[in-house]
Amino acid sequence: MLRLYDYLASGNGYKVRVILRLLGMPFERVEVDIVRGESRTAEFLAKNPEGRIPVLRLEDGTHLFESNAILCYLAEGTAYLPQERLARAQVLQWMFWEQYSHEPNVATVRHWVAHLGVPEEKRALLEQKRALGVRALSVMERHLEGRAFFAAERFTVADIALYAYTHVAPEGGFDLAPFPRVRAWLDRVKDRPGFTPITQA
Amino acid sequence: MLRLYDYLASGNGYKVRVILRLLGMPFERVEVDIVRGESRTAEFLAKNPEGRIPVLRLEDGTHLFESNAILCYLAEGTAYLPQERLARAQVLQWMFWEQYSHEPNVATVRHWVAHLGVPEEKRALLEQKRALGVRALSVMERHLEGRAFFAAERFTVADIALYAYTHVAPEGGFDLAPFPRVRAWLDRVKDRPGFTPITQA
Repeated sequence: MLRLYDYLASGNGYKVRVILRLLGMPFERVEVDIVRGESRTAEFLAKNPEGRIPVLRLEDGTHLFESNAILCYLAEGTAYLPQERLARAQVLQWMFWEQYSHEPNVATVRHWVAHLGVPEEKRALLEQKRALGVRALSVMERHLEGRAFFAAERFTVADIALYAYTHVAPEGGFDLAPFPRVRAWLDRVKDRPGFTPITQA
Repeated sequence: MLRLYDYLASGNGYKVRVILRLLGMPFERVEVDIVRGESRTAEFLAKNPEGRIPVLRLEDGTHLFESNAILCYLAEGTAYLPQERLARAQVLQWMFWEQYSHEPNVATVRHWVAHLGVPEEKRALLEQKRALGVRALSVMERHLEGRAFFAAERFTVADIALYAYTHVAPEGGFDLAPFPRVRAWLDRVKDRPGFTPITQA
């Protein structure tokens, strides 16, 4: 059986839980306490040298890491990842954008505010990241003009990747009120049959 | 003809130049002075709402952004991007890792040190990023034990993505001496037929 090394509050872990459940693939979930350093032990680093969850252990024992690469692996050959060359590249475009311009800001602010606390010396960096997070939400709002989903004119792994930290952005203090298209898209994603909440272990 | 919006010193732009030349695809290169804000004009934001180079304009007028998504688009159907599901996912795994854990540290330190200068208020952040950059190089060194390339047991777009900022890391003050496997891999990549230097416009 597939085994997912995971952390329940993690949006990156959540992405993998969502696709596994949408595809009806059974898996064993192993909770890794990242705040207590359980992803930085020698044993865990043998699974992912970067020391992060999620990691997916395949049937053959291979450990795959990077949440968006795992999404693509699991969605290969399904409607969630287009075969057509340009549509596929546009799905990847938004997934790379998510990891570079969205996650380090929206997710990090939420993690500090909601889980770790913000030490005084990180205040200035937090505010920089908050501004970049608002900028990322603005880029999403702009792109969603006239579009129901991010790429390929349908629901894909790009939407799963972007939903993960956008829908919990308010936990980091982000106000989604100025982003009506983002809010409508969040509802469209959430209401899909079989789409499960981040709290479901 | 394909048109590449580019900045000569950018490793992200360089990735696209490398694959286009390896594949023998003619293209028109448009230099965008990112330091002077030319990637943040309204005209440029219509091409990429994030306001970054590289952007590839396809024959049909579509603008594709995110360097690693462009790499995948151009390499689709060639030896540089495997068809096999797991090998393809492992290529993506290292490309997502590059954008999240390598580029924001190794590339940003180089950009500040070599191009922008480091203002006093960024000193502490620079040193944090330098430490994370060294950590990224260590992850690469560890992964290259017993391997010639990063994924799929051959030269792929993952190697192009990782080469781009690793080979110029010394411009940011990174010492590659402690990473002999990384240095040997850099030589293997550089010596491939048709592989062009970052200075080639």
